[in-house]
Amino acid sequence: MRLYLAGPDVFLNNFGAELLGAKKALCARYGVEGVSPMDGQLAPGGLDPFAQGVAIYTANVRHMRSCDGVIANMTPFRGISMDVGTAFEMGFMAAAGKPVLGYSNVTDSYAVRAESYYRGRHHEGVDRYTEGTSIESFDMTDNLMMAGAVHASGFEVVRCRVAAGQELTALEGFEACLRQLQRRR
Amino acid sequence: MRLYLAGPDVFLNNFGAELLGAKKALCARYGVEGVSPMDGQLAPGGLDPFAQGVAIYTANVRHMRSCDGVIANMTPFRGISMDVGTAFEMGFMAAAGKPVLGYSNVTDSYAVRAESYYRGRHHEGVDRYTEGTSIESFDMTDNLMMAGAVHASGFEVVRCRVAAGQELTALEGFEACLRQLQRRR
Repeated sequence: MRLYLAGPDVFLNNFGAELLGAKKALCARYGVEGVSPMDGQLAPGGLDPFAQGVAIYTANVRHMRSCDGVIANMTPFRGISMDVGTAFEMGFMAAAGKPVLGYSNVTDSYAVRAESYYRGRHHEGVDRYTEGTSIESFDMTDNLMMAGAVHASGFEVVRCRVAAGQELTALEGFEACLRQLQRRR
Repeated sequence: MRLYLAGPDVFLNNFGAELLGAKKALCARYGVEGVSPMDGQLAPGGLDPFAQGVAIYTANVRHMRSCDGVIANMTPFRGISMDVGTAFEMGFMAAAGKPVLGYSNVTDSYAVRAESYYRGRHHEGVDRYTEGTSIESFDMTDNLMMAGAVHASGFEVVRCRVAAGQELTALEGFEACLRQLQRRR
């Protein structure tokens, strides 16, 4: 079984090589193959920035099509929600009927984070125009489409409390996803 | 042709009834049918919040499967990126091989917004742990998976400058998407 390793991991140092390497090693221990979005990607020479982005999109889609499921790092990234590229990938795999699993290293529900975002006035320099919009409150880690997809796959989003500063790198939640998958196989 | 109307529109007053109604009327003028995520959804009685969220997920997926394409409102929502539920839906439709279109009522590229997020220290009350992560810079409106999907469909993300306060409701960008689609049909 090939598992696509979705997440903002690729924005860490050296395209997240260390974290993604550790994830692949963990996968191997559970008898599955972890596939990094970066696998086989070369810096495309001579392309303008937009075309480079498109080339990476194409490679990521190819990886997803070659995989049998996804484990997504849903930890909030640059804001109160998870990385939108990862959200796209969860939707992509859900539509393909492949198992969708995910973990977040921040345990508060989405509603709690959104309320604190407005209460702290953090939105004022960012998107003041969202003031007064309704906040979904389904006791889920993020927008309901994510938890919905994981639930529809027969799994549960893992919420993991980790030490400050380890939010993007701690792997307990990732391993808990592998255990969920193992129980099902 | 049935078009799924993805976006944070549903978080506006009365589940975005006014905005989604206006989008449907515009769709009709272009000879297509706009499908709102809220169509036919009843407040599910007697369910706990999580199960309510799952019920909405299921209904949204049914709507997406019944549609032939999507126009996504990609305007940044509660942060520097678009709504993650909408991102999920773009991925879902891309995997199904259906045309993916989108618009943003904020014109800055993602890189510009992300840099301003850190420069203004807006991240400090939100996700300080993302400090130092690399910022993708492909002259795209958001994470490359979105623009990549729109591009792979043969379209372009519409960037629309609108009056302050109209970011979530202005429809010029939406109509520009309908025109792109019309030129292709």
